[in-house]
Amino acid sequence: MIETAHRGLLLTNIGQLLTLTGSSRSRRGAELSDLGIVEHAAVLCRDGKIAAVGSESELMRSFKDSSVERVDCQGGVVLPGFIDSHTHPVFTSPRLVDFEKRIQGASYEQIAQAGGGIRSGVAGVRAATEEELATHVLLALRSMQVCGTTTVEAKSGYGLSPDSERKSLRAIQRAASKWEGTVIPTLLAAHVVPAEFAGKPNAYVDLICSEIIPETAKAKLAQYVDVFCERGAFTLEQTERVFTAAQEHGLGVRAHVCQFTPAEVSRLARFDPASFDHLDCIDDNNLKALATQNTVATLLPGASYFLGHAYPPARKLIAAGAAVALATDYNPGTSPTSSMPLVLSLACTQMRMEPAEAIAAATINGAHALRLADRKGSIELGKDADLAIFDFGDYRELCYWFGSTTCRGTVTNGRLEIF
Amino acid sequence: MIETAHRGLLLTNIGQLLTLTGSSRSRRGAELSDLGIVEHAAVLCRDGKIAAVGSESELMRSFKDSSVERVDCQGGVVLPGFIDSHTHPVFTSPRLVDFEKRIQGASYEQIAQAGGGIRSGVAGVRAATEEELATHVLLALRSMQVCGTTTVEAKSGYGLSPDSERKSLRAIQRAASKWEGTVIPTLLAAHVVPAEFAGKPNAYVDLICSEIIPETAKAKLAQYVDVFCERGAFTLEQTERVFTAAQEHGLGVRAHVCQFTPAEVSRLARFDPASFDHLDCIDDNNLKALATQNTVATLLPGASYFLGHAYPPARKLIAAGAAVALATDYNPGTSPTSSMPLVLSLACTQMRMEPAEAIAAATINGAHALRLADRKGSIELGKDADLAIFDFGDYRELCYWFGSTTCRGTVTNGRLEIF
Repeated sequence: MIETAHRGLLLTNIGQLLTLTGSSRSRRGAELSDLGIVEHAAVLCRDGKIAAVGSESELMRSFKDSSVERVDCQGGVVLPGFIDSHTHPVFTSPRLVDFEKRIQGASYEQIAQAGGGIRSGVAGVRAATEEELATHVLLALRSMQVCGTTTVEAKSGYGLSPDSERKSLRAIQRAASKWEGTVIPTLLAAHVVPAEFAGKPNAYVDLICSEIIPETAKAKLAQYVDVFCERGAFTLEQTERVFTAAQEHGLGVRAHVCQFTPAEVSRLARFDPASFDHLDCIDDNNLKALATQNTVATLLPGASYFLGHAYPPARKLIAAGAAVALATDYNPGTSPTSSMPLVLSLACTQMRMEPAEAIAAATINGAHALRLADRKGSIELGKDADLAIFDFGDYRELCYWFGSTTCRGTVTNGRLEIF
Repeated sequence: MIETAHRGLLLTNIGQLLTLTGSSRSRRGAELSDLGIVEHAAVLCRDGKIAAVGSESELMRSFKDSSVERVDCQGGVVLPGFIDSHTHPVFTSPRLVDFEKRIQGASYEQIAQAGGGIRSGVAGVRAATEEELATHVLLALRSMQVCGTTTVEAKSGYGLSPDSERKSLRAIQRAASKWEGTVIPTLLAAHVVPAEFAGKPNAYVDLICSEIIPETAKAKLAQYVDVFCERGAFTLEQTERVFTAAQEHGLGVRAHVCQFTPAEVSRLARFDPASFDHLDCIDDNNLKALATQNTVATLLPGASYFLGHAYPPARKLIAAGAAVALATDYNPGTSPTSSMPLVLSLACTQMRMEPAEAIAAATINGAHALRLADRKGSIELGKDADLAIFDFGDYRELCYWFGSTTCRGTVTNGRLEIF
């Protein structure tokens, strides 16, 4: 990996530049497939921001600065770096036993009841040092970056105690400080009830609300609080309690909902969650309600693929007017992938999203799912210079080839890395 | 890519060496999951062959040659390079229009009838030079190699005329001469009936049997003859005619069967095909018959994934005693992937193959599908030194992580390349 620090960077000879410009709110309906393509384009980055963008001939006519570093994109595709708005990178080892049990026919819930699942990852995280966890997170961030991701939401959630959730968030912070991309940390203490609170879920929710959330907010270790709202994890009522505490402490909220069972998630609308994630089982009433909200519907088809479940109803969500985003989940139990291009492939082949829709869902709508769209997710003057450069001649190839798509390089906050 | 030529190469510090030794015939039933794992292992390659293999401590005790190049595998997994026994690399451009039409709901057969499908790739191949095609094939071979593949079966089949099938096979030969891995060329003139023979399929079969096969055999441009035996392509009777001509000219035979519709493939057993490929729709009687044959059942789950079809019945085939292999298909219309690790992931998550079964199917049984198992597919004294080195601590991770798995390096006929 060659890394080049600089203050000015000019990308030339871009065959297709996907600007994703054209709307300030999250993309819905037909808007989702408008990529704002400029052919034969160039982009100038300066001081970490997009300083100029347009057709190469026009941009070069007015551009005289010979001191700027130039990168020839060789006719390839350049787009906003992917926004992976849902990941679980704080763990210590792959869940291979769960994986084999599932192949042999055990369900997610059977595996959890037999001592596998989320709880089986907790011992490893509790025993690890912050530095060990940070090393793992940084490896995950870099593996995402070679697939074109430049912004990552990263959750805790395998600590499940005040100390180990704090340690997990500090590990995220430490890894983020060593990575050129952008990391949005999320507290997911409400991932599952830990063994020491077995039979006393409300006592654990009390601990989250009275201690873990206030301390996290005070130490500025997270921007969001997330809840796994699901049978076997937390109820809607418990989710409301956690959301209330989060908002009292100035933190944003988001939730895992309807992954395995439907739920009345419209009840949570009053909290204005940034995102509802998974939604595999959302029913029609809640789906319609979601379409009227500001909340983004973040779909995680990697989890459906890995668990062998039905995929989320992307076409119904888009038709209803919901703002759909796509993310990897990067989760040791349910979606061990760091590849946004594979998620695009799943979205197109398994959920019948158009390539253009999938790309918008993985960029501008991912930015909306993190409430970062004022500075990320599209290639516009003044926005952060976060770009992914691919060697394809046509943007649809990002979704067409599958299994080993990596990018030629990224720009993260104005810094170029060629892989 | 650093390439190192040498006559002696010692791989040390292998955490798990998957030797795949232990049987001379194709792996069936419980045998399929016996990987022959040696922990803390080392492998010596010399003159392109495996010269020593075993536990590192034993091997090093008797090994004194300090001139040999050493590679520290850092506790990773080393296995026989994948044998990708079914690929279509001779084409000029991705089939993006077909891809979008399929997302919009068109079936494979509807796309073919509307002028897409196999025939839409023919114009490009006919117009291309041999050198242009060879450049594309070589890129494909290299993209497979970074995923751990060291042997590739490569079919013609987008030429569909004597000249352009010959050109396609020469392009394969030219690319193979520039690649360190091993390529097995296959004539697939019987891919589909070309437009100029519309309504006269038997006249095209006459041409294949009387001209294309004899010339291919004379020029030694292929080792196998393949037929797409399917509704809309070629009938069983036509397949028998092509097979008869192939055998008269000393070429091996293999066939695409039961991809979309069941067929009485047991009728073809008398030709002793090296492999039947796809088998998504094979019925129980033909499945049972296959289990008694020497013919390998080569499954292509990438095609099922990309087309959104049901997966082939891997568990039923294994239970019946068939020899199952796995391959990518690497096909612009139905499976645009070069990644054997992604195929392993599909096999485990979608077809419930155990990780060990999938790995054996992608190595030793792939070698049997090409009748190369006397020299490839396992790590044994005297066999070709074809290896893949991965940075995982546990072989199951090859099947667990998905979407961007690449290897640290390969050994192809004794030559090391680190990526």
